[in-house]
Amino acid sequence: MNDTQVMLGHGSGGSMMKRLIDEVFYKAYGSEELLTGDDAAVLALGGARLAFSTDSFVVTPHFFPGGDIGRLAVCGTVNDVATSGATPRYISCAMVLEEGFPMEDLLRICASMRDAAEEAGVVIVTGDTKVVGRGSGDGIFINTSGVGELAPGVNLSGAFCKPGDKVLVSGTLGDHGITIMSCREGLNFQADIQTDAAPLNHLIAAVLDAASHVRCFRDPTRGGLASTLNELAAQSGVDIEVSEESIPVKPAVLGACEMLGYDVLQVANEGKMVCVVAPDEAEAALAAMKSSAYGKDAAIIGEVCEISTPERGPRVSLKTTFGSKRVLDMLVGEQLPRIC
Amino acid sequence: MNDTQVMLGHGSGGSMMKRLIDEVFYKAYGSEELLTGDDAAVLALGGARLAFSTDSFVVTPHFFPGGDIGRLAVCGTVNDVATSGATPRYISCAMVLEEGFPMEDLLRICASMRDAAEEAGVVIVTGDTKVVGRGSGDGIFINTSGVGELAPGVNLSGAFCKPGDKVLVSGTLGDHGITIMSCREGLNFQADIQTDAAPLNHLIAAVLDAASHVRCFRDPTRGGLASTLNELAAQSGVDIEVSEESIPVKPAVLGACEMLGYDVLQVANEGKMVCVVAPDEAEAALAAMKSSAYGKDAAIIGEVCEISTPERGPRVSLKTTFGSKRVLDMLVGEQLPRIC
Repeated sequence: MNDTQVMLGHGSGGSMMKRLIDEVFYKAYGSEELLTGDDAAVLALGGARLAFSTDSFVVTPHFFPGGDIGRLAVCGTVNDVATSGATPRYISCAMVLEEGFPMEDLLRICASMRDAAEEAGVVIVTGDTKVVGRGSGDGIFINTSGVGELAPGVNLSGAFCKPGDKVLVSGTLGDHGITIMSCREGLNFQADIQTDAAPLNHLIAAVLDAASHVRCFRDPTRGGLASTLNELAAQSGVDIEVSEESIPVKPAVLGACEMLGYDVLQVANEGKMVCVVAPDEAEAALAAMKSSAYGKDAAIIGEVCEISTPERGPRVSLKTTFGSKRVLDMLVGEQLPRIC
Repeated sequence: MNDTQVMLGHGSGGSMMKRLIDEVFYKAYGSEELLTGDDAAVLALGGARLAFSTDSFVVTPHFFPGGDIGRLAVCGTVNDVATSGATPRYISCAMVLEEGFPMEDLLRICASMRDAAEEAGVVIVTGDTKVVGRGSGDGIFINTSGVGELAPGVNLSGAFCKPGDKVLVSGTLGDHGITIMSCREGLNFQADIQTDAAPLNHLIAAVLDAASHVRCFRDPTRGGLASTLNELAAQSGVDIEVSEESIPVKPAVLGACEMLGYDVLQVANEGKMVCVVAPDEAEAALAAMKSSAYGKDAAIIGEVCEISTPERGPRVSLKTTFGSKRVLDMLVGEQLPRIC
């Protein structure tokens, strides 16, 4: 590890975070389960198959259009567990509170967690509370961990993508990141930009019912679609090509990204799912997404290909609306800290 | 909730924290599992019985005699899972890092987590990393959540204590809290005071092998033995009487407590287990503890009784070395913030 200190970019979801994970966490305690690199670990326990995932939430501000840190904390972990194909069942909630945090805000956040858990059909079963002095935290940090039940025969992984497979996304990109950005900076792009934070376990279940050759799901949170696709390409040792014109983005979000100089494909989402599926099941998977509460804007956006330049390894490319092709890189450094 | 803001005492492990849990968390999302009030939730999943627990660690300083925040984070969750009688199997690790945190410290902490996980026989299978800006955190906060496997027929709960049962503790009290205190204040009581942080799952397994009528285990962390016994008394609707002279305390720790005005029975432990067991199995449970790596100072310290004054409800009393009897209350307010 060349870095001598932790930097904001180490939490970005992009290449700096990958380096921290590879060189610090994997080196120290890189179990077989951890090294798969999927969002949830798939485990055997007492004859059952379970999926287990964890996420800490440090988003600021705590309340924003369409959601708050509580909704995010429940949905984020529900979605991570669900990416494995499991049915999320139980959630833990551990809070680190800063002295002076308004009790009224805590009550609102807890009510929001309850609502999100009910919507997802999960139960908050265990918790923990720590309080740190003023100046040692930032209001509230929430960790949720989640456990789900995996049916026999369901085996999904970012390492299973094959040339020819289709890549789907469940809806418009960039909504969450741009919402947080505009809140934080006091910008007012458009009234209709709000977080997409949502539990996607029902959408995933619908896709799995409709298509029996799903390779993987992954939610494009920090680092956005670009980082997620790069992770999948690297895990599977393939190229991925996506087409810009097929990627759903709200005009207001696109406008905001252009003004701020962001690549919308690197902006975080909290209620979107990327899905890679066998080509002959792509339409069925798409229809299942579209019929789901949070999938009406779903689209097939590209496909998995053989590696084109073996000496450079797996890469992701974007066919632009102008007909050219450019490499779509993982986010480098930090675009917008603390969006989740 | 009368408090309008979060205060340090809300994280104490004592009566203020109990109020926060009762009036905020239980009211918002008080599931049946959460309301049991045990350290780990016992859950059904795919035909298996699993135990699930979570803990966030905010201790300062990060390194102290005998351990560090990493060892604490693994042992704390291993012990919480094990209190249910389950075999801890899998651990998650989510870190909230502050910008500028020394990478060298992070490497040491990760190595310590690996060592503690190996000692406990658990695997770190999933993780998360967030980075917050300078001034928005305090170096490092670690959440660990844990999943364990519960054998059929094992049913332990703080609600199962019966009059006549014996109360055991697995070793000397107050070591961890006084270690943190002396580090933080630069005090130097005695060279031999160090944290007791240790994984106690093997000790618990040994007791369960030796005694088939264990009612419960609970680790007396924040709030110390006094708060733990009050929790058990309230859960079971019983009185508990313990005898001061039978409670193991190191002379150096007792001396430090006397100097600082602390009640050692309210000081936190991180490697001790309270066990309530049927009277005819108390000696067997004690022998099992004593033969275990972390149990050589184990002792039978008291017993469960009928409620003596029904109008006042369950209470815990201490027979002092002078022969008098005093009420042993739950910690009120905050004694020493951020000891775990």
